[in-house]
Amino acid sequence: MIGGGRGAFIGAVHRLAIRLDGEAELVAGALASTPDAATQSGRELGLDPARTYASWRELIAGESKRTGTDRLEAIVIVTPNHTHFEIAKACLDAPGGGFNVIIDKPLCHSVQEVADLERLTATSGRLLAVTYNYIGYPLVRCARELVHAGELGTIRKVFVEYHQGWLATDLASTGQKQASWRSDPAKAGGGAISDIGSHAENLAAFVTGLEVDSLAADLTSFVPGRRVDDDAAILIRFKPTVPGAPPARAVLTASQVCVGEENGLSLRVYGDKGGLSWRQEQPNELVVNSLAGERRIITRGSACVGSGAAALSTRLPPGHPEGFIEAFANIYRGIFEAIRAQSSGAALGDLAKLIPTVREGARGVRFIHAAQESSKNNAAWTRLDSL
Amino acid sequence: MIGGGRGAFIGAVHRLAIRLDGEAELVAGALASTPDAATQSGRELGLDPARTYASWRELIAGESKRTGTDRLEAIVIVTPNHTHFEIAKACLDAPGGGFNVIIDKPLCHSVQEVADLERLTATSGRLLAVTYNYIGYPLVRCARELVHAGELGTIRKVFVEYHQGWLATDLASTGQKQASWRSDPAKAGGGAISDIGSHAENLAAFVTGLEVDSLAADLTSFVPGRRVDDDAAILIRFKPTVPGAPPARAVLTASQVCVGEENGLSLRVYGDKGGLSWRQEQPNELVVNSLAGERRIITRGSACVGSGAAALSTRLPPGHPEGFIEAFANIYRGIFEAIRAQSSGAALGDLAKLIPTVREGARGVRFIHAAQESSKNNAAWTRLDSL
Amino acid sequence: MIGGGRGAFIGAVHRLAIRLDGEAELVAGALASTPDAATQSGRELGLDPARTYASWRELIAGESKRTGTDRLEAIVIVTPNHTHFEIAKACLDAPGGGFNVIIDKPLCHSVQEVADLERLTATSGRLLAVTYNYIGYPLVRCARELVHAGELGTIRKVFVEYHQGWLATDLASTGQKQASWRSDPAKAGGGAISDIGSHAENLAAFVTGLEVDSLAADLTSFVPGRRVDDDAAILIRFKPTVPGAPPARAVLTASQVCVGEENGLSLRVYGDKGGLSWRQEQPNELVVNSLAGERRIITRGSACVGSGAAALSTRLPPGHPEGFIEAFANIYRGIFEAIRAQSSGAALGDLAKLIPTVREGARGVRFIHAAQESSKNNAAWTRLDSL
Amino acid sequence: MIGGGRGAFIGAVHRLAIRLDGEAELVAGALASTPDAATQSGRELGLDPARTYASWRELIAGESKRTGTDRLEAIVIVTPNHTHFEIAKACLDAPGGGFNVIIDKPLCHSVQEVADLERLTATSGRLLAVTYNYIGYPLVRCARELVHAGELGTIRKVFVEYHQGWLATDLASTGQKQASWRSDPAKAGGGAISDIGSHAENLAAFVTGLEVDSLAADLTSFVPGRRVDDDAAILIRFKPTVPGAPPARAVLTASQVCVGEENGLSLRVYGDKGGLSWRQEQPNELVVNSLAGERRIITRGSACVGSGAAALSTRLPPGHPEGFIEAFANIYRGIFEAIRAQSSGAALGDLAKLIPTVREGARGVRFIHAAQESSKNNAAWTRLDSL
Repeated sequence: MIGGGRGAFIGAVHRLAIRLDGEAELVAGALASTPDAATQSGRELGLDPARTYASWRELIAGESKRTGTDRLEAIVIVTPNHTHFEIAKACLDAPGGGFNVIIDKPLCHSVQEVADLERLTATSGRLLAVTYNYIGYPLVRCARELVHAGELGTIRKVFVEYHQGWLATDLASTGQKQASWRSDPAKAGGGAISDIGSHAENLAAFVTGLEVDSLAADLTSFVPGRRVDDDAAILIRFKPTVPGAPPARAVLTASQVCVGEENGLSLRVYGDKGGLSWRQEQPNELVVNSLAGERRIITRGSACVGSGAAALSTRLPPGHPEGFIEAFANIYRGIFEAIRAQSSGAALGDLAKLIPTVREGARGVRFIHAAQESSKNNAAWTRLDSL
Repeated sequence: MIGGGRGAFIGAVHRLAIRLDGEAELVAGALASTPDAATQSGRELGLDPARTYASWRELIAGESKRTGTDRLEAIVIVTPNHTHFEIAKACLDAPGGGFNVIIDKPLCHSVQEVADLERLTATSGRLLAVTYNYIGYPLVRCARELVHAGELGTIRKVFVEYHQGWLATDLASTGQKQASWRSDPAKAGGGAISDIGSHAENLAAFVTGLEVDSLAADLTSFVPGRRVDDDAAILIRFKPTVPGAPPARAVLTASQVCVGEENGLSLRVYGDKGGLSWRQEQPNELVVNSLAGERRIITRGSACVGSGAAALSTRLPPGHPEGFIEAFANIYRGIFEAIRAQSSGAALGDLAKLIPTVREGARGVRFIHAAQESSKNNAAWTRLDSL
Repeated sequence: MIGGGRGAFIGAVHRLAIRLDGEAELVAGALASTPDAATQSGRELGLDPARTYASWRELIAGESKRTGTDRLEAIVIVTPNHTHFEIAKACLDAPGGGFNVIIDKPLCHSVQEVADLERLTATSGRLLAVTYNYIGYPLVRCARELVHAGELGTIRKVFVEYHQGWLATDLASTGQKQASWRSDPAKAGGGAISDIGSHAENLAAFVTGLEVDSLAADLTSFVPGRRVDDDAAILIRFKPTVPGAPPARAVLTASQVCVGEENGLSLRVYGDKGGLSWRQEQPNELVVNSLAGERRIITRGSACVGSGAAALSTRLPPGHPEGFIEAFANIYRGIFEAIRAQSSGAALGDLAKLIPTVREGARGVRFIHAAQESSKNNAAWTRLDSL
Repeated sequence: MIGGGRGAFIGAVHRLAIRLDGEAELVAGALASTPDAATQSGRELGLDPARTYASWRELIAGESKRTGTDRLEAIVIVTPNHTHFEIAKACLDAPGGGFNVIIDKPLCHSVQEVADLERLTATSGRLLAVTYNYIGYPLVRCARELVHAGELGTIRKVFVEYHQGWLATDLASTGQKQASWRSDPAKAGGGAISDIGSHAENLAAFVTGLEVDSLAADLTSFVPGRRVDDDAAILIRFKPTVPGAPPARAVLTASQVCVGEENGLSLRVYGDKGGLSWRQEQPNELVVNSLAGERRIITRGSACVGSGAAALSTRLPPGHPEGFIEAFANIYRGIFEAIRAQSSGAALGDLAKLIPTVREGARGVRFIHAAQESSKNNAAWTRLDSL
């Protein structure tokens, strides 16, 4: 693991998710940006001092020398966004054939970096997984399966929103660590659009399979002194899927100034035959409506979920709530499945097929850029393919 | 009453609302557009045959001759939208000083008509009330009172949505009466934007007091063969209220192709100190959040509602649900209060002050036009004052 | 109307319910227990002074002289419980063939009174309707229809609860009118068991059609100084319906000391094939579960409601909330239907068939008595037929 | 770990919970009741073959020889209920000072066994923790803290229910493993009352601190052929806490024939100053009501939770749902804290203080016995101290 030392939020979450199913072990780390903090964090986590590194460069250098079963199966990158590219590149490029990379979203900053990573991933043959964790929820997978099975018919309209309130005040100026780097344009690469908007984009794409053609985005910074957007409202037009029919549209909103909202990610999808609705804060329920007026609640783990990836992504019977960590761990189960398949040459299993890879990571970065570009042009329609 | 004969939805609702509190009586009507239907509808409602008219012109002519306590206190217009202007004008202009007018939204079609009605109302001294019924809900009034009292601080962001699914198929072609005229551009003057979008606009304005500066609207017709929009997504920028602070923004969505949504009107408002959320389908609850992390549920009729218009707008103790008809009747209670004040010269009471008048009706028509104009220009920002 | 003058809660609700559908008119009243208050209340309601009576005896005497279309079609009794019997008896017995009676629950106090009223109703040929208003909700009727259609299979278990918090303190000692007479054993005939427990009993019986065989009740008075129960917990065994199968059971709880509960009446019914759940505070939704794991939400007014009494009991499309008054008015619609059938000799319509009559009223009184008897005997099993 | 091999539900859950926080490791096991299955299960879990035992006796014998840091810190017993006593006794009694024991509820079968384990635990100085996992939820702990802080005043009434539907049919006869032993009176020691009723009892006791004085229980077997109860309805009277005030009462219901209910454990507590409500299926929300009419929603992880055990029991910010596994792991965190304190002689930390021990386990067994005894006597009041 690179990054994720004491005080880091997402690194600790990654470790919970990695540990949950007992399929992998954290054995080495460069956990902080200063040598002291890195060493201390490693000690706190019980890492072998020999594999606790003072910097990510040392980690890659040191671990590259190990081979066979002693070699790392993957490196997890949970550093601030602006460092993603350089570290990921170094991991993929590392002596001995590179390392598989697991990286938090967004994948990187620039569209050029995206292209480099796409190329490098292809040539290295390594896996680059981007932890868009929300698509690990079983009922998000169920929603995808329902859409793919045609239960909703041709999709017309999507509402996806991600509303939080924790940045409604100038938290960064108080020194709160999370808020600080996320509010620095150079480190975060954007504000709400980058931090949570990209999760919303990924969720909608995962469930519907639709591709964004163009968007019109209005980004705002409401909090005095903030240098990145803290609110984004985006109209989206998807690429056509059915000749003659109007292409589907979406409204995506992401905001971090919605006082009282905690982690309000939700998705609603409507087709010409049905509609569905899912809320991250009540993740064990999926509402499905039909044209005939039937409203069904599908609960995680129930017989109605079927036997596909949604069913495989659940550990407990219905009524025994699973949450954020379990969903995150489902992404890791897919990654571990993929790494085992890489070793054995076996075909990808159902969970491995759903991992967000460099493709999804690249799409996310292009989406962020298009939104920023559109907003600079007063919400002018901006085509993603133009980037 | 003009319009609202057999088979009409909203006319019957008006009658329920008028009757509920026993403050007024329906005594005359031109209830349908053909003489036979008008007569038969009048008979079914037990109207005096002498005051059952074959057309609205006859009604105005006949009733204008009555004076004193025998004279109508108001005429309710519940005809299709395209006839609103002509009838309202005739009512205000009627011999004997005109009639007070109660009219369903939208007030009329064109911006020119709006100006005429504004002028005519002013010169006649008559009341012109527009039945934006959703602002009759007690907790919508409570929300307004909270905002006005500063509990939310300076408003930053508003989400208002009105989602239905009943027009997800081509219901108009089946001859369904409601769907038919609402899907005819000449009669309805618009689709979702006109039918329900204008309710959403009114709700947001009522609660926040903010005025729309400009908007960017994307209107779509998803159902094959439909000639009006059935889906609207609108970005809104309000006029500034606090010097130096970014003006508030809103996202307004209105759609009639959201399969499974019944009458999904909802409002969320966020300021720099708090947020609130209300849903029309669960109207007896209002969620209020504070910066300090407190989440309160205010229930209709409870002590937390205070003693203003919100409290006066309730008939039953908390836990005894009130609904759509009661909210509608609250608009009528305000109208009756205003009519009594008109006669007696008394000051307007708390409920009368909240009636939507020609001012709100005019604002709604301008909003619809701006949205249609923006959409024709590929969602270009359009200023309301430019209309 | 007898009773229901100023300050009375339930009388005003009856008037709202009577008025809503425009099928009946209040024309005479003895609205309070003192002549002055009665006169003043009549004036406030705009009653003809000639038909505003100083006492219920005068009302019956005066109105008995009227005949034909001038004669009252029914008398509504909304006085405190202890006066029900005498007034109802006088109404049924009145010169000129008696009057139809509409009476608030509980029907009367003693089991002997019940027998008298049953006999008197039979001999007079008059209707005696008891306003158990909660069974007027459309989805309660839908629940009954589902049970009767066998969707739940053989019923095994029922949970019915009615929890309020408004009597958690000694409100009676503050002079609050509602609380005062309801807390007086001589006037109310019981506390929570009588006031709300009987509604719960009626709701469960209405939906399931099951008859109580015996019960074990634990009644408590929690609030210091209170002379009636404010909390009741009752185990119920129903009469067998399927030979060999264990008879169904229920748990009925009624409490008025549940701080924060407003009007928490709810019903859950489980059979060997399915289960259902309904809450009075969200009355527009009914949850239905099947053995196969399907969970459906049936909404009032939707196509899933079918075309029976549940559908006839609704006035608005789904998503337009109906509430307490509308449900109450559904009881009245049935009563008016029954009165019309009485005049015309027609068969009872679907709504008239569902009116709670002296039969249900009698069952309610026996239930209250059995519970009080059981509680005196330390919750010993008490058979209803033994009373 | 003893028990918990392939196909076992609760053993796998224990392992997830143990692993989550990375504080302990499973190193030895006798995972099944037959040698082959035990060996195979050990292999599947990657246990050292030298520490994979064919029977629990061999495990205790083998592991007793290990000392110092090589010695097991605790043994987890997740076998069917009827074997609990013998195994727990052997663990506590084992050579070398016995082992700490972690055991699934119910602790054992008979009241005599309870006394033996209480005595043995005291003399051995070992910890005996009983995994009543539901009290690991952060907001259950918050509820307890609110009650202890007096926010609800003197408790009057408790409703606790645990409703499931998975045993609504004769699942045991289909060979379903879970259903089979749980439906065998000799193995399970009871049905719903033992399996889930004891969780309900524990939850209510944990939050309120009240002690059961006596109870009246009606246990039923609804499913044909079932030999244990599948439905329990219990009236409870607590011991007095405030002189002169009526002792608090509870209604506890536990049922496994509620078709459609998944894992419906819920608790409602009402005092003379406030009330609260919590549902296991939405565990991240706690509703708290005050006499003044305020209704608050406290969310897990929010500032309103305070800084006690409830706050320490959470891993993620509000809005990031935690569920069943996390709550279970909170019990284990407390156990690990206690074991470390045992070694170091330090005082118990906040989480360790909340572990259910032999005391709570004993209370649970007495509760089950009292309920069974009462039910045999036709729901006669039965005092717990009489057992």
